[in-house]
Amino acid sequence: MSLLLLAGATVIDGVSDKGIDGRAILIENGRIAAIDRLDELSVPAGTETVDFSGKFVIPGLMNANVHLLVNVLFETLVRYEGRYEDLIVEAAQVALKNGLTTVFDTWGPRRPLMSARDRIDRGSAPGSRIRCAGNIVGFDGPFSDDFDRRIPGVGSSYFVDRVNATWVENVGRHLMWLTPEAVGEEVRAYIERGVDFVKYASNEHGGASAGAFLQFSERTQRVIVEEAHRAGLTAQSHTGTVEGLRIAIEAGCDLVQHCNMTGPTEIPRETLELFAEKNCGAVVFPLTDNGIKILKESISDFEWTLWKASDANARNLVGSGASILLANDGGIFAPEVRNEPMIKGTWNGLPEDEGLGRLATGHFVWLRAMEEMGMSPMALLHAATLNIAKAYQVDADLGTLEAGKIADLVVLDEDPLRSAKNYQSIHAVIKDGSVVDLDALPEQPLLTADLPPSLEEEVHYKKAIHHGARLPGCPSCVNGNL
Amino acid sequence: MSLLLLAGATVIDGVSDKGIDGRAILIENGRIAAIDRLDELSVPAGTETVDFSGKFVIPGLMNANVHLLVNVLFETLVRYEGRYEDLIVEAAQVALKNGLTTVFDTWGPRRPLMSARDRIDRGSAPGSRIRCAGNIVGFDGPFSDDFDRRIPGVGSSYFVDRVNATWVENVGRHLMWLTPEAVGEEVRAYIERGVDFVKYASNEHGGASAGAFLQFSERTQRVIVEEAHRAGLTAQSHTGTVEGLRIAIEAGCDLVQHCNMTGPTEIPRETLELFAEKNCGAVVFPLTDNGIKILKESISDFEWTLWKASDANARNLVGSGASILLANDGGIFAPEVRNEPMIKGTWNGLPEDEGLGRLATGHFVWLRAMEEMGMSPMALLHAATLNIAKAYQVDADLGTLEAGKIADLVVLDEDPLRSAKNYQSIHAVIKDGSVVDLDALPEQPLLTADLPPSLEEEVHYKKAIHHGARLPGCPSCVNGNL
Amino acid sequence: MSLLLLAGATVIDGVSDKGIDGRAILIENGRIAAIDRLDELSVPAGTETVDFSGKFVIPGLMNANVHLLVNVLFETLVRYEGRYEDLIVEAAQVALKNGLTTVFDTWGPRRPLMSARDRIDRGSAPGSRIRCAGNIVGFDGPFSDDFDRRIPGVGSSYFVDRVNATWVENVGRHLMWLTPEAVGEEVRAYIERGVDFVKYASNEHGGASAGAFLQFSERTQRVIVEEAHRAGLTAQSHTGTVEGLRIAIEAGCDLVQHCNMTGPTEIPRETLELFAEKNCGAVVFPLTDNGIKILKESISDFEWTLWKASDANARNLVGSGASILLANDGGIFAPEVRNEPMIKGTWNGLPEDEGLGRLATGHFVWLRAMEEMGMSPMALLHAATLNIAKAYQVDADLGTLEAGKIADLVVLDEDPLRSAKNYQSIHAVIKDGSVVDLDALPEQPLLTADLPPSLEEEVHYKKAIHHGARLPGCPSCVNGNL
Amino acid sequence: MSLLLLAGATVIDGVSDKGIDGRAILIENGRIAAIDRLDELSVPAGTETVDFSGKFVIPGLMNANVHLLVNVLFETLVRYEGRYEDLIVEAAQVALKNGLTTVFDTWGPRRPLMSARDRIDRGSAPGSRIRCAGNIVGFDGPFSDDFDRRIPGVGSSYFVDRVNATWVENVGRHLMWLTPEAVGEEVRAYIERGVDFVKYASNEHGGASAGAFLQFSERTQRVIVEEAHRAGLTAQSHTGTVEGLRIAIEAGCDLVQHCNMTGPTEIPRETLELFAEKNCGAVVFPLTDNGIKILKESISDFEWTLWKASDANARNLVGSGASILLANDGGIFAPEVRNEPMIKGTWNGLPEDEGLGRLATGHFVWLRAMEEMGMSPMALLHAATLNIAKAYQVDADLGTLEAGKIADLVVLDEDPLRSAKNYQSIHAVIKDGSVVDLDALPEQPLLTADLPPSLEEEVHYKKAIHHGARLPGCPSCVNGNL
Repeated sequence: MSLLLLAGATVIDGVSDKGIDGRAILIENGRIAAIDRLDELSVPAGTETVDFSGKFVIPGLMNANVHLLVNVLFETLVRYEGRYEDLIVEAAQVALKNGLTTVFDTWGPRRPLMSARDRIDRGSAPGSRIRCAGNIVGFDGPFSDDFDRRIPGVGSSYFVDRVNATWVENVGRHLMWLTPEAVGEEVRAYIERGVDFVKYASNEHGGASAGAFLQFSERTQRVIVEEAHRAGLTAQSHTGTVEGLRIAIEAGCDLVQHCNMTGPTEIPRETLELFAEKNCGAVVFPLTDNGIKILKESISDFEWTLWKASDANARNLVGSGASILLANDGGIFAPEVRNEPMIKGTWNGLPEDEGLGRLATGHFVWLRAMEEMGMSPMALLHAATLNIAKAYQVDADLGTLEAGKIADLVVLDEDPLRSAKNYQSIHAVIKDGSVVDLDALPEQPLLTADLPPSLEEEVHYKKAIHHGARLPGCPSCVNGNL
Repeated sequence: MSLLLLAGATVIDGVSDKGIDGRAILIENGRIAAIDRLDELSVPAGTETVDFSGKFVIPGLMNANVHLLVNVLFETLVRYEGRYEDLIVEAAQVALKNGLTTVFDTWGPRRPLMSARDRIDRGSAPGSRIRCAGNIVGFDGPFSDDFDRRIPGVGSSYFVDRVNATWVENVGRHLMWLTPEAVGEEVRAYIERGVDFVKYASNEHGGASAGAFLQFSERTQRVIVEEAHRAGLTAQSHTGTVEGLRIAIEAGCDLVQHCNMTGPTEIPRETLELFAEKNCGAVVFPLTDNGIKILKESISDFEWTLWKASDANARNLVGSGASILLANDGGIFAPEVRNEPMIKGTWNGLPEDEGLGRLATGHFVWLRAMEEMGMSPMALLHAATLNIAKAYQVDADLGTLEAGKIADLVVLDEDPLRSAKNYQSIHAVIKDGSVVDLDALPEQPLLTADLPPSLEEEVHYKKAIHHGARLPGCPSCVNGNL
Repeated sequence: MSLLLLAGATVIDGVSDKGIDGRAILIENGRIAAIDRLDELSVPAGTETVDFSGKFVIPGLMNANVHLLVNVLFETLVRYEGRYEDLIVEAAQVALKNGLTTVFDTWGPRRPLMSARDRIDRGSAPGSRIRCAGNIVGFDGPFSDDFDRRIPGVGSSYFVDRVNATWVENVGRHLMWLTPEAVGEEVRAYIERGVDFVKYASNEHGGASAGAFLQFSERTQRVIVEEAHRAGLTAQSHTGTVEGLRIAIEAGCDLVQHCNMTGPTEIPRETLELFAEKNCGAVVFPLTDNGIKILKESISDFEWTLWKASDANARNLVGSGASILLANDGGIFAPEVRNEPMIKGTWNGLPEDEGLGRLATGHFVWLRAMEEMGMSPMALLHAATLNIAKAYQVDADLGTLEAGKIADLVVLDEDPLRSAKNYQSIHAVIKDGSVVDLDALPEQPLLTADLPPSLEEEVHYKKAIHHGARLPGCPSCVNGNL
Repeated sequence: MSLLLLAGATVIDGVSDKGIDGRAILIENGRIAAIDRLDELSVPAGTETVDFSGKFVIPGLMNANVHLLVNVLFETLVRYEGRYEDLIVEAAQVALKNGLTTVFDTWGPRRPLMSARDRIDRGSAPGSRIRCAGNIVGFDGPFSDDFDRRIPGVGSSYFVDRVNATWVENVGRHLMWLTPEAVGEEVRAYIERGVDFVKYASNEHGGASAGAFLQFSERTQRVIVEEAHRAGLTAQSHTGTVEGLRIAIEAGCDLVQHCNMTGPTEIPRETLELFAEKNCGAVVFPLTDNGIKILKESISDFEWTLWKASDANARNLVGSGASILLANDGGIFAPEVRNEPMIKGTWNGLPEDEGLGRLATGHFVWLRAMEEMGMSPMALLHAATLNIAKAYQVDADLGTLEAGKIADLVVLDEDPLRSAKNYQSIHAVIKDGSVVDLDALPEQPLLTADLPPSLEEEVHYKKAIHHGARLPGCPSCVNGNL
């Protein structure tokens, strides 16, 4: 029997409305056996004790929307062909290192994700606990109109098809051609392959077009949700317009993703009220005041209307009664692509302190941003723990520090209830009752490794910069200016 | 017999090394009969006298490189199909209005150019005297890799072929496949259709590639030049590299275009000396100090190396003994395309005072720029008149104010020998011995007309700005960032 | 008072279940005064009589879906800028010449369409009676992701915006971002500008993506239909999937376009039954057996599944109780684009006898195709007349030959009830009670004019075919093979 | 001392004008010690004897133009990053297995090529003897306008630059901007890095443009050739037009590549005669009669003119006195790209028996093709051995079977002097005096390995074929037809 006693800390258990000083936590076989004053606890012989005096213990953080393999650029997927599972484990380790003991992967390649999940679950590798959806029902693969339409033709059809198949299987865009009942059958077959929850597209992804089309009718959405529920799984959707959002909630989703991203239109009051009425979790993607400021200076008035509405939505959701969930599309990118325009052009383009999308730090940005929007300290903690656990229906095991629950905890140097920025003062992480060796993570850096040094050839090459140089200025030569 | 007496002005005839005050010019039947003190002249009865006291008379300005139809964007060529000649006449009138009594069109559609030339020559329309080359031997048409390679497929093959044929005829890129002798035959056939001089490509145009390829071998270039000379025409070439330039001069060209544009490499001393040695005119495309300054702030270090070399070349040519010619690729653009990136991205992107490429003002910019580079006042005048006349072998008729020459004159309010900017103080233009009605030009504004007012539909449309809007920020969606 | 008597023909009035021999039709002031045996009629003095003995008179044909300005390629829209109304009138004259006395234009530029409609209505020009929708609510313009996404950047933003605005106004893609109520307001504003009926997109157009997205939710669709009905107009929708079709019928559409085009999935039985239940007209786009055969040989197995389902749908609709309407997306194309791949690749690519999309002949193909699918002779006639009149709620005036209705008639040499191909044997067309001078149509051929002869330059150009020629065969040069 | 005796074969030594029966070849330490009747030879003790009675021994075959790493598609170069040397060794083993004991790699990545060369030279790996040029002086890299211009932007700039640098170093397109002298300096620096010969571009590669531009002036070409000769290396050039070819020979090249590929123009008689006059080797790329026939049926009349001229040139070169060399651009392609259009569209698209470009078989096709064009049996053998050795100035060691030369031999089952097809009847290959274990080659199949089996996901995916399906037929939607 494995036994661990955490002593001396202020415990913020997520149940009480404040932290309680000087509590000890007894952990047996990975679960919390008791939380009490040390002198009230009967501590079995052989229990290892760790002194966390002066520290703050909170439930393990959760992230309701990550993409452990988000770096789906063609180059990266070719380079790591056959090793996608390793990339996913690496990301799960980056997450764990930063206090995320459980992450919900809401889009990625099903089989490698499930393998990584199982590897971590059975203790073969450290890492954040993964629960995954596989594909977003209705989306086509990385090399399609939904993501990067330039690749078919550039890549071999062999590889393009293989990657698309790995992500999509039988639940891609073609479902849009089918009747609701036929869609339901395909979703059922997909569920049977072992995903943990179902995510589908209420709105399209926005790659190929306006991002505002509806992918499935309300009737089809109901059928998908019913299939998930029948299998005992939760259901959620990708939304992008006020109407896509409304339909998804009406269809019975347990939570909706980035619900504050609704283009230029603010969510109407009735829809804000639907969240509480339908008990639907609201994932919000907020920006800090400073992030907003930086962004506003770099984008057009037109783009600004989109961000403005998203910001207003986030503020309106606070206090609307909706259960707000922390999430950020978090993922990691290889160094060689991190500065490419197509990556820089996203939230990742913001400085690390304000950019939402980084897996390692985005949840800290989230907490600061929502604090600025007026969420209370305890509401913030719940958004990062209990609300997520409830929405995903894993609150019997996770989300608070209570006897009987899995012992996932984060130990902080500073009090998170005093300032959201203190969430980043991680002292230790305990997962499944064991102290994580944070310094050892990630064990095998791939995407997080540094670039190799330059080749001698590159030095020769870069001295001669005029390889493809064109003469400036001919007014009648359009090519030169394109 | 038409008789005109210009009295009272300071005459800068281009022969003496300074202006001579109080000279009268007697014009008979379009030619200068005499220049002298009024009291020395025998003025026939019926002579109309114009008093230019206090003014400065110079030879009519010339431009060694214009493109009267430079606005060869697909949209413009569709819109004005069948009216290219009218566009050319319009441009020739813009030129004349600005003191250019003769322009050399070095690239354009042969038949409409020749028709416009003849219309003006026979007095059916006012306008700058046109002499034209038609196509640049070796270039393909406006809708090809040489200019705008996006159009085939967008436009009907019927129209694409028709336009390309109109510009190219039998002297396009395909000549590169032929032996020197076979190229010579094609050039001979082209000359027989009536062009005034021959221009060929020593370097390619730079549309499709680096702009540094050689289009024709030195042997082929010699054959082309010989064909021109055999027909009594001058020959010139489009050059873009130091080696392309050297070959062109060696091949016997009478002048070379924009010879200071040689990519990142400055013209070597030996090549600078070749100009005088081979009696080859040097067309320079300079920028003012202020133009250079503006440019430098807006371009990359890499692009800057190209402009830097071009600027150094221009300075080195002054004083090298080369006969320098004024030219600017001048043309006019329709208002709807003037602010498009493909046009703005050229010299036309500079403010009007510094941009070289505008037909109406670029020659004034040229004169100020070369003054800054140290050319003497008389050298400047020669660059804009006599040097061009000599290079094009029309100095028996044009280029100075001398008895017997055609009476092309510009009357200025301010002394051009005091400051180059005074060239812009145009008081009157006399061409072929007649005072031009400057206010009436252009007679039929097409490209120089204003845009029509907005439609009501546009107002409705523009209120709704989010037509194709995409949601911001998905890090895995490359399409959205392209 | 204008008076006309048509004598001697077999009258197929669309009311009786067969033709009646030897009937005379008396027309007064453009309306049918009486139909009877000649000796039963009281014919006013001054009545002009035309003898149609041996001929067959049917109600004027109607087409439920044409696009009088379908040739929206960039080149064509530039060339005819300012003359779109003339192009529309030309097309309406082509339609009339071929027996179509009334056409419903379901997508086009509102203002020019309404002007052409009014010009014809008030008798200023001959032509088919036009009723028009303007834009399809939800679609962006000709130079957008919905049609030709290559043009922005190729065309000036001035012209691109102007054309898009002309087609779209306030009812484009941006509506997808709005709430149902806000969409309703925009549709109301659009209706007020004078369109005759409302068409909206249930499915997207298929230009940018799969063609299977839903453009509007069922709730939004209901709001749009209600707005149309409130204004006394009919409503219809563009559909492309079985679910998009179902929603449109449920939303209360009066008719749905090309409802047999549902991708690879056949329309389920319940949806087939909805047509009759909801009294919704079913526009079908069929192909002849021979057309299907030609097509099958030229397309992939994959594409074939789409056509196969569309063919099965058409057959299933016959006899389903649905009111079937003749239509064909008919339009005319300029000669220079008619053979371009982007046009050839459509139905227009089929030989004239089998291609559905030609305005002049597609309705004849339609009738033959549906005859092959088992529609009865009278059902065919109704599909081309009465059913359309009812669906568009103009059956008080049009659709049959009855006293009181507008005198639109087609006189055929052969009996259309014997064979559908006899519809093409047009002897005369009467519209609004006047005999149309068919030989004079179209009065001013623009798109239907022949191409001008070749230029001399083209002859020179085409002799040299190797302008952009590349060497064959380098295996490592991808460019050359693209 | 290693000793080997080959007994009993007919020896075709490349010196005599026919094969000599019953000759034995004694090999000592990798070189031929003697060739004679067995009873005339003094065979040292310990000599291993192989009986080749009834076989035919010829000098080891050579190929004057291969690209051991020709599969430079982006996908392949990403996948095998860091293993390019292994790919090159694999190709060298494929070559050796097919009788090529020496190959001249005329374009590829310098460092990996030299490493592979050295690995084979020192016996660390079996393989054809490699001599290499590295980059073609003047060409930019695989991801540039010279090869695949689509990749910059698709690949990370990090990787794009790295690959381009690996191929190009300091001798890319930028040289075109320089003076002849400056080009010479760059070539000298490149030579010093250890390449075996110099290849430069007389004509451009044809990727970006017509393929007919001249890359370097005649003067620059002379300077490059002189630099090569000064370093004791041979020089050759890539040519593509009759004028580019003429200049290259005049400039002093030791051989010219694919000289029969001159676009639509046949090589003039004077240029044909230059080969012998200047002692310049003529690499020919021929097709068999059957290959030509297949090709003609699949290409346009226009493309046919290119092949027709190339065929005529090949025939004219036979008997012109030029020293003809066997070569084929030979390389190997990974199975996943072998059927992609960009590969199929080349010679590799022809059936294996007629396609020239395959490394394993192209030389056999070459021999059959030139036999059909009238080359004598011995001339064919010389083209594949002695002529190449002479042109590359390695005939002191290679090219014939003579005492003192390196013991590279091929043993055939059938007599190559009776029919060129017999070259393919390889019985054994001896290189450097050792019998090669042909069955073991290639030792580590990478590009020549089979594809892995399908994934389960692919099966799910491919059942649903309509992922990106579009509806057929809308005549106004250009996107759908592109």
